Amino acid sequence: MNHKMVIRTTGMLLLAEACLLLLPLCVALFYRESCRTSLLITAVISAALGAAAMLAGRNADRTIYSREGFTITGLSWLLLSAVGALPFYFSREIPSYVDAFFETVSGFTTTGASILDDVEAMSRGLLFWRSFTHWVGGMGVLVFLMAMTKNISERSIHIMRAEMPGPIVDKITPRTKDTAKIFYAMYFSLTFTEVALLLCGGMPLFEALVHSFGTAGTGGFGALRDSITSYSPYLQWVIGCFMLVFGVNFNLYYLILMRRFRSVLKSGELWTYLGIAATSTVIVSCNIHYLYPSVSDTVRTAFFQVSSIMTTTGYATADFDTWPTLSKTVLLLLMFIGACAGSTGGGIKVSRVVIYAKGIRREIQKLLRPHAVNRLRLEGKPVDESVVRGQNAYLAVYVLSFLLIFFLLSFDRFDIETNLSAAAACFNNIGPGFAIVGPTSNYADYSVFSKLVLSAAMLMGRLEIFPILLILIPGTWRSRGRLSVATVGRFFPLFRK
Amino acid sequence: MNHKMVIRTTGMLLLAEACLLLLPLCVALFYRESCRTSLLITAVISAALGAAAMLAGRNADRTIYSREGFTITGLSWLLLSAVGALPFYFSREIPSYVDAFFETVSGFTTTGASILDDVEAMSRGLLFWRSFTHWVGGMGVLVFLMAMTKNISERSIHIMRAEMPGPIVDKITPRTKDTAKIFYAMYFSLTFTEVALLLCGGMPLFEALVHSFGTAGTGGFGALRDSITSYSPYLQWVIGCFMLVFGVNFNLYYLILMRRFRSVLKSGELWTYLGIAATSTVIVSCNIHYLYPSVSDTVRTAFFQVSSIMTTTGYATADFDTWPTLSKTVLLLLMFIGACAGSTGGGIKVSRVVIYAKGIRREIQKLLRPHAVNRLRLEGKPVDESVVRGQNAYLAVYVLSFLLIFFLLSFDRFDIETNLSAAAACFNNIGPGFAIVGPTSNYADYSVFSKLVLSAAMLMGRLEIFPILLILIPGTWRSRGRLSVATVGRFFPLFRK
Repeated sequence: MNHKMVIRTTGMLLLAEACLLLLPLCVALFYRESCRTSLLITAVISAALGAAAMLAGRNADRTIYSREGFTITGLSWLLLSAVGALPFYFSREIPSYVDAFFETVSGFTTTGASILDDVEAMSRGLLFWRSFTHWVGGMGVLVFLMAMTKNISERSIHIMRAEMPGPIVDKITPRTKDTAKIFYAMYFSLTFTEVALLLCGGMPLFEALVHSFGTAGTGGFGALRDSITSYSPYLQWVIGCFMLVFGVNFNLYYLILMRRFRSVLKSGELWTYLGIAATSTVIVSCNIHYLYPSVSDTVRTAFFQVSSIMTTTGYATADFDTWPTLSKTVLLLLMFIGACAGSTGGGIKVSRVVIYAKGIRREIQKLLRPHAVNRLRLEGKPVDESVVRGQNAYLAVYVLSFLLIFFLLSFDRFDIETNLSAAAACFNNIGPGFAIVGPTSNYADYSVFSKLVLSAAMLMGRLEIFPILLILIPGTWRSRGRLSVATVGRFFPLFRK
Repeated sequence: MNHKMVIRTTGMLLLAEACLLLLPLCVALFYRESCRTSLLITAVISAALGAAAMLAGRNADRTIYSREGFTITGLSWLLLSAVGALPFYFSREIPSYVDAFFETVSGFTTTGASILDDVEAMSRGLLFWRSFTHWVGGMGVLVFLMAMTKNISERSIHIMRAEMPGPIVDKITPRTKDTAKIFYAMYFSLTFTEVALLLCGGMPLFEALVHSFGTAGTGGFGALRDSITSYSPYLQWVIGCFMLVFGVNFNLYYLILMRRFRSVLKSGELWTYLGIAATSTVIVSCNIHYLYPSVSDTVRTAFFQVSSIMTTTGYATADFDTWPTLSKTVLLLLMFIGACAGSTGGGIKVSRVVIYAKGIRREIQKLLRPHAVNRLRLEGKPVDESVVRGQNAYLAVYVLSFLLIFFLLSFDRFDIETNLSAAAACFNNIGPGFAIVGPTSNYADYSVFSKLVLSAAMLMGRLEIFPILLILIPGTWRSRGRLSVATVGRFFPLFRK
């Protein structure tokens, strides 16, 4: 393990977080809110810690293998959230640090699960920060770092692989740094377009920014108590459609930029994704039509909720907890399928579902014709056996992790439906679940232990489990020469043996 | 596809069912019950159909490949249940044929889910038949057939593989027929021992037989309204322990017979199985202690329920639906883990869970040391990669099937917890779930559609999905010369193109 490089990168990350904190600080200064002090103090702490880590990790060997990639990613996200929670805590707007941590993890992982009883009581500076974490977390903080830093090693593709969701992460350009830049450029443009369209619909600038951040990151934090319910149909359609847009694999947008439209139209994942969304909208519309006065209301509400849950955003224009069982079941299943790989959405991802379905078909064909050779193909290309094996291990670790989270929640005092949907909503980075954690309610009543479990669930969901799993395994930290565990222990007492 | 052999084997099977029906007929004659007519008629129908099929499939080529093995198994179980349901229907003791079919599928698949409001109102002959289907279904009807038939082809290992649960089915003796015989001999002895122990505890012979059948097949049909609750602690302990005994891989009993005790003690699956059962008992005991007057009552009740659910039997000595969430969650998780491979129990099977856990560990090791070569080992032996791949496809098809069943149930009018536990309880062949399908209740209120879905779920669960999946795929039936689809259509109009 290249410990110095791990320390150096997390240092860079904290410096970046200090810079990111300046944005909400400006908002707080603009509105002359008292939270500016807490934002400033946190930025200073973050910068100081970051500088210290950079100093400790200077002259680090830049070599990064997949092990370092995963560790850096897991550790970075944990630190980022731990520091990012401080403004809420310092300002006393969220008096408990665990609650503040939960809220920040929920932000960076683009979950949108909240412990706030009244979001409208928050200061605008902190509301901005809360939604801004969605935007940063959606595309990935380390990808952001790579886009911004000079002289970054080509090896950093390992970090990108660990942070970007989906079974296969390809560089769309020869250099990793360029790929990261292009991704962020597209991300920024799409977000800007949404802000513009929301402004056209009469939404105030602050709210337009907050909701665009929430949509872009497929997060779900808003600015109003009733999420999106009180906005006009036009605004609901804009947000509903943009959620779907941000759930698409960003590689496809690059292909559109390159004018390779035929490749886009041939994308199996895209059609499966849109097909599932359309089918679900139809089923839910038929199922809930009696609750709404007109067809357009019914379809809009059904589409919004389907889009919100499938892309794992979590905005709501209706209390879907009161819907009939069929619609709730459709939403529960969508929670697990999730969005496309390479998007800002969570869940198992459509492309994995396709891989699993093809794996089943292959097994059936093997039973029918034992001697035939079948290779899995995805988007027209054959899939490497090691990738298939990795995805199968992912399904196993996904199922086991989910059941473990569900089990740990059962120590709390809620019923099975609440716990099941809370585990599903946090692990898949959606936000609201059913019953006590439904769209009109929040996670405040869970115990401290359950909140920590759910925070871990959100991180595991966002980073696709392995980075978080790896930093918990002692074997990961065993040094091969370079820097001993004892030295690391000096900086991170948590990992001292 | 060797269609003639498929027809011939299903014919043999129907003849066997006619013979099996003679046993409950004797019971009905002994008690002079009116259900004897319906049992007799069914036996005659079964024999006639069987003889016709045998005639149609005479001079069949005995060649069986895995495709034929799976198809024969899937088709046989469907036919067996369809015919086995007739006595309930003819006697009007279950007036609806769908209900009777559900009850019989539940019997043969050793599920134990019932649509009967009052089991004590049934005639003894039919109660006996209902429980006897558990006993036959537990070890496998086709395995039974193989044990009984002369001149059976060695190729029939393919049938055994399709019918016996678990990832790897090995012949414990060189000849398949001997293996089948030994399995049934051990099964019979263990059942006989339980009957004897129950008689010692003062249980009447009829009830001792019924409950031993239910325990041996890990089924769960009983003779009393309150399942096992009203029996003495001694009888509860006997049944509780025997459920655990029948959940163990039968290969281990063979090893004990061969005095290879060291191999038994080294079995990883056995220890994992017992470890999970013990841990769960401790957790549930701690969680429910306040509900029971003494420690012995608490431990007995906790152990009985854990053993019953983990081995997928479904007997109850307490209404666990009223237990706290933690205990209910433990039971829900046990429903999925299930018993050992090569036992009469259902669920995912402990050995598969072990394989999945080892697959995850291997993937983590690969991330840490990308160039190291790791092979999965089970019970000390390396596991073939194709087996690992098959098990992974199994997990995928298991998850997808489960979600599909859960989705189809949501068209009915019940809540998510009921549907979820009903899907889990039927798919894993347990029987009772929570809420409306809890241990003090039954499946009668589900619609006809849902009952058919749940019947399919039980069959898929018992046969580990693929046999049922294969008979639904047109490609399976495509002939290679021998016998055309049109010819099959003459006998089975259902499969006519």
